[in-house]
Amino acid sequence: MAKVLIIVGSDSDLPIIKGAVDALEKLGIGYDLKISSAHRVPDKTANLAKTAKDKGFSVIIAGAGMAAHLPGVVAAYSTLPVIGVPIKSGALDGIDALYSIAQMPKGIPVATVAVNGAFNAGILAGQIIGLSDDKVLNALRDFKESMSNDINNKDEKLQKIGLNAYINSR
Amino acid sequence: MAKVLIIVGSDSDLPIIKGAVDALEKLGIGYDLKISSAHRVPDKTANLAKTAKDKGFSVIIAGAGMAAHLPGVVAAYSTLPVIGVPIKSGALDGIDALYSIAQMPKGIPVATVAVNGAFNAGILAGQIIGLSDDKVLNALRDFKESMSNDINNKDEKLQKIGLNAYINSR
Amino acid sequence: MAKVLIIVGSDSDLPIIKGAVDALEKLGIGYDLKISSAHRVPDKTANLAKTAKDKGFSVIIAGAGMAAHLPGVVAAYSTLPVIGVPIKSGALDGIDALYSIAQMPKGIPVATVAVNGAFNAGILAGQIIGLSDDKVLNALRDFKESMSNDINNKDEKLQKIGLNAYINSR
Amino acid sequence: MAKVLIIVGSDSDLPIIKGAVDALEKLGIGYDLKISSAHRVPDKTANLAKTAKDKGFSVIIAGAGMAAHLPGVVAAYSTLPVIGVPIKSGALDGIDALYSIAQMPKGIPVATVAVNGAFNAGILAGQIIGLSDDKVLNALRDFKESMSNDINNKDEKLQKIGLNAYINSR
Amino acid sequence: MAKVLIIVGSDSDLPIIKGAVDALEKLGIGYDLKISSAHRVPDKTANLAKTAKDKGFSVIIAGAGMAAHLPGVVAAYSTLPVIGVPIKSGALDGIDALYSIAQMPKGIPVATVAVNGAFNAGILAGQIIGLSDDKVLNALRDFKESMSNDINNKDEKLQKIGLNAYINSR
Amino acid sequence: MAKVLIIVGSDSDLPIIKGAVDALEKLGIGYDLKISSAHRVPDKTANLAKTAKDKGFSVIIAGAGMAAHLPGVVAAYSTLPVIGVPIKSGALDGIDALYSIAQMPKGIPVATVAVNGAFNAGILAGQIIGLSDDKVLNALRDFKESMSNDINNKDEKLQKIGLNAYINSR
Amino acid sequence: MAKVLIIVGSDSDLPIIKGAVDALEKLGIGYDLKISSAHRVPDKTANLAKTAKDKGFSVIIAGAGMAAHLPGVVAAYSTLPVIGVPIKSGALDGIDALYSIAQMPKGIPVATVAVNGAFNAGILAGQIIGLSDDKVLNALRDFKESMSNDINNKDEKLQKIGLNAYINSR
Amino acid sequence: MAKVLIIVGSDSDLPIIKGAVDALEKLGIGYDLKISSAHRVPDKTANLAKTAKDKGFSVIIAGAGMAAHLPGVVAAYSTLPVIGVPIKSGALDGIDALYSIAQMPKGIPVATVAVNGAFNAGILAGQIIGLSDDKVLNALRDFKESMSNDINNKDEKLQKIGLNAYINSR
Repeated sequence: MAKVLIIVGSDSDLPIIKGAVDALEKLGIGYDLKISSAHRVPDKTANLAKTAKDKGFSVIIAGAGMAAHLPGVVAAYSTLPVIGVPIKSGALDGIDALYSIAQMPKGIPVATVAVNGAFNAGILAGQIIGLSDDKVLNALRDFKESMSNDINNKDEKLQKIGLNAYINSR
Repeated sequence: MAKVLIIVGSDSDLPIIKGAVDALEKLGIGYDLKISSAHRVPDKTANLAKTAKDKGFSVIIAGAGMAAHLPGVVAAYSTLPVIGVPIKSGALDGIDALYSIAQMPKGIPVATVAVNGAFNAGILAGQIIGLSDDKVLNALRDFKESMSNDINNKDEKLQKIGLNAYINSR
Repeated sequence: MAKVLIIVGSDSDLPIIKGAVDALEKLGIGYDLKISSAHRVPDKTANLAKTAKDKGFSVIIAGAGMAAHLPGVVAAYSTLPVIGVPIKSGALDGIDALYSIAQMPKGIPVATVAVNGAFNAGILAGQIIGLSDDKVLNALRDFKESMSNDINNKDEKLQKIGLNAYINSR
Repeated sequence: MAKVLIIVGSDSDLPIIKGAVDALEKLGIGYDLKISSAHRVPDKTANLAKTAKDKGFSVIIAGAGMAAHLPGVVAAYSTLPVIGVPIKSGALDGIDALYSIAQMPKGIPVATVAVNGAFNAGILAGQIIGLSDDKVLNALRDFKESMSNDINNKDEKLQKIGLNAYINSR
Repeated sequence: MAKVLIIVGSDSDLPIIKGAVDALEKLGIGYDLKISSAHRVPDKTANLAKTAKDKGFSVIIAGAGMAAHLPGVVAAYSTLPVIGVPIKSGALDGIDALYSIAQMPKGIPVATVAVNGAFNAGILAGQIIGLSDDKVLNALRDFKESMSNDINNKDEKLQKIGLNAYINSR
Repeated sequence: MAKVLIIVGSDSDLPIIKGAVDALEKLGIGYDLKISSAHRVPDKTANLAKTAKDKGFSVIIAGAGMAAHLPGVVAAYSTLPVIGVPIKSGALDGIDALYSIAQMPKGIPVATVAVNGAFNAGILAGQIIGLSDDKVLNALRDFKESMSNDINNKDEKLQKIGLNAYINSR
Repeated sequence: MAKVLIIVGSDSDLPIIKGAVDALEKLGIGYDLKISSAHRVPDKTANLAKTAKDKGFSVIIAGAGMAAHLPGVVAAYSTLPVIGVPIKSGALDGIDALYSIAQMPKGIPVATVAVNGAFNAGILAGQIIGLSDDKVLNALRDFKESMSNDINNKDEKLQKIGLNAYINSR
Repeated sequence: MAKVLIIVGSDSDLPIIKGAVDALEKLGIGYDLKISSAHRVPDKTANLAKTAKDKGFSVIIAGAGMAAHLPGVVAAYSTLPVIGVPIKSGALDGIDALYSIAQMPKGIPVATVAVNGAFNAGILAGQIIGLSDDKVLNALRDFKESMSNDINNKDEKLQKIGLNAYINSR
């Protein structure tokens, strides 16, 4: 069953938002992914947000670049936690999107992650869902452990083959 | 008759948006001024934007601080020209609002003025309305001339009394 | 008949300003396009601005990069609404142009759009002209609808073929 | 029972973090509030994070200014969702804290809110807890409705007494 | 005889531009000081710039805040060296003016000094005039020496009375 | 015996640099404090740097605001470690000084601390001197422990009297 | 005879500083070009600055990237006007150099041009030298006229062949 | 014997941190290089920091990008001087890492170098170690001299072959 609703405002955001999909799949969490702009199809976007809870979603992830109003607009219409992913695009390289998503007014939070940090949006959704879903919680623990192992393995390799060989092997 | 619809997202924006009111009154242009947040009352805001043209408005001025989604959200729902006023508030001093209002995506422009530049929003509305209203056009010309006269008078005073006296007289 | 006067300060700005031309053509609005720098041919630029209204123009679009004084200089000489397009160039990537165009002093507004947002400058000009021209208004409505349809079609395609296939198809 | 663990790195952050406490109290959510610096008492901080889940907490809110490592350090030691509040302090006015909290590396998200946005951190915690707690969910809905009513009442007052009287009454 | 033409765009800039006047007076250099805006009285400003050389001026100092087009506009109309003083005003605290004055396009330089650095604009004018005026050159050398002496005296005082007494004596 | 040479470019920097003096005194490290500008007395400054090692200094701390060349200029003339303190002053609030001190070219490092972070410059000097001076090392350990105790005491007080009482007691 | 002394801190700056050489050659002004770092050969750099006036130079142009202390250090040792060229290099893309060169302290100005604006540094030097050298002044006037002609020719070509053909022809 | 402990948070940082290795090898200083993330293996990182002094290290160099907590976290656990290298990565190009490393709170300094300034981190470590190690001190002096010679040789070459030939030869 889909637990996370992912929305992007433009299909040009799909390669970045794929990071969220990757994270959710790693954690075994179902999702729906929609293209729906806050500015080009505002009523559809409002409707997606308004109906998300009743459709069984627990978290909404919204990614957008530049003015990046999508996450905030979605948050206006729902009591679900909304995670915003600022996407690097246009001349300001994502600073505009970071400010626009993070600096929400009092009362309507958006949980902002790093610019292009879609993978972390998926992990954060997993942390929220894992509060009441032990399978997801276990997957999160496995993921955290695999990150540790990965770093440790890399360090071991570095100690074994040395810096220059390591750099050349990357 | 009201030609300009002014919207702010919070009553804390009223002292700044008063600049737009001052400009419109100077140009003899009627207006309605509404408090309606994009995030706290999104449906009311959408409705204000959707019905603005049929109510006879020609221009919408929207002022907001921080994430400042209001002007863009209004622009999503109307074919009227929308003028956005970034308002200085919060820790980022209005840079966030400037980016959020100016960096609109392709297809949905917002005419952005300076941070706290509400007076200029009113003048810009006047320039738009003056295209088809000679009384407003004449008022604009008078205003432009009065600005010139004002500068010239100040320069004359400076030449007469000198820098130190001028500074003390301010 | 030409309704919009477009000015750029350098021929290197033409590929960006083409966005405005595209938008105006989509809306069926005539235009003149001139290269005229605020700094290299200031008198010619002043003259273009001073005579624009009498030549029948309704809106001026001016695009410039870096110090980007052109839109403000044009606004100084006309009561027409002036739309400024900050163009990304030089080491500061358009932030300089955005500030220089948006932060106009009290009394002389420039309607600023996004960095490189020339297409939106054209749409904004159309929204202004559409106030008194039903053909342009209808074209604007068609454009707004086509944007909605385009997003909806993309979302439909995404639902049908899935994320990976969609990304590969772009 | 305490569901939210709030940590600040310095007692100078308490007046800002009080916003989170206010929000949690409004939603009827229990909390513990601790002063524990990532740099001055790193082991204590690590321990707070490591034991938070077993103590029954569902969400951690961490507020910090300047380098603002606290939220990220806490997130390193827990699978609970961590909400980071950048606090305005020092010469950079909170931009440093915003970047330091939002720009977390792949795999360890922090849910970032606005600079000084502690109240929204509390609301976001409530949205997470409300997923499995109907009393909190109802309190959230009441809060959302009260925000709407508040805006509507303010707009009504503005329509009744006018702009100047409204500004004077604030 | 007046050698330096000083122009500000607004009488609110006079307290800052006084720094340039102070420097010129210290160096014994005559000046004219005018209020003339690039946007409010563009023709007058153009005329001041065009006629400056024939009136015997050697250097133009122009100070402006926010969009700060004045120095660039003046430079467009003259072959005299133009010194631009970015003035801190408005929400962006002078960064806008610094960019707008420094980032001039190829062929039309403005010699930019620090934000609010009007005193240095006067000294720079003196360095230029001192190339062909030995009295000014000597005054510059005296000024440089007096700066050294001043620092040395302060250091001597610090060594004598110690840090705490020094701070209390300031 | 003086182990640390502290230099500031202006006596207006003394209240900030006092933080370094406080830290050194807390660690029992002798110091000399000089006012010597990189721009106003460049030869004296060069001489201070060139002779520092032979005079027995181990570390140089240099504090400066705005263009803030002092630390880099000192580093050019010495093999001693140089710690730079960006000082908040002027319109850019210390960002200029932070960049100017941190962004040194290859081969001539300056150890940069936070804007106005003079206290930390003193602690860093202590960490360097503590490598070969056990009394300083012990003082550092005591200082680190006192910081922990301080935080723990504050947390204990908070748990005892609660948030509101704590805030009121500050 | 060489009238302008050009200094860069690194041979990697030569391709940018070539713009100044081009401008000076266009104006018929002699120059010397030296590589001399403020940090790597500080005594040589100080000596170049100290002796520049006696060697007959009228203006010094100094270009540097990142911390970019060179122009300020040169200005410390001379009463000649010093023009600083911020050079884009390193991670901050020249903003660091712009701040470091423009934000000089009271009493020691550097005439700052745009990031990478070396050509304008040459023109500015020409404007200074042209005050007492009619051949240079005439060359400046010719250059200003050729810029106007160039823009006019480009505009004529645009009117003749149209936008698309123009863009293709570039 | 290893005197410097180098830590990076990710193997993607190795190509940059190699600069520190190069500098240390040039100065004949032994080092250990470890991959150990503050967020992915926090306990291992804490342990590396806690044991560094007893293992005989004198200096710790830590490099990290984006949120870049690693240097600060290491500094929390040790009395050794910690040098932080902000690494350019992600959408903000290293500004985030610079702020996060430099803006450490009172009491826990990190000696920050330029973005990607790993070579300078190695030189700074050498300056610290050179205080009690004459071989390193001599190597530092040789390095400083070789930098001077290198610049002088380049200048000589420039004087001999001229600018265009020099640029072509690079």
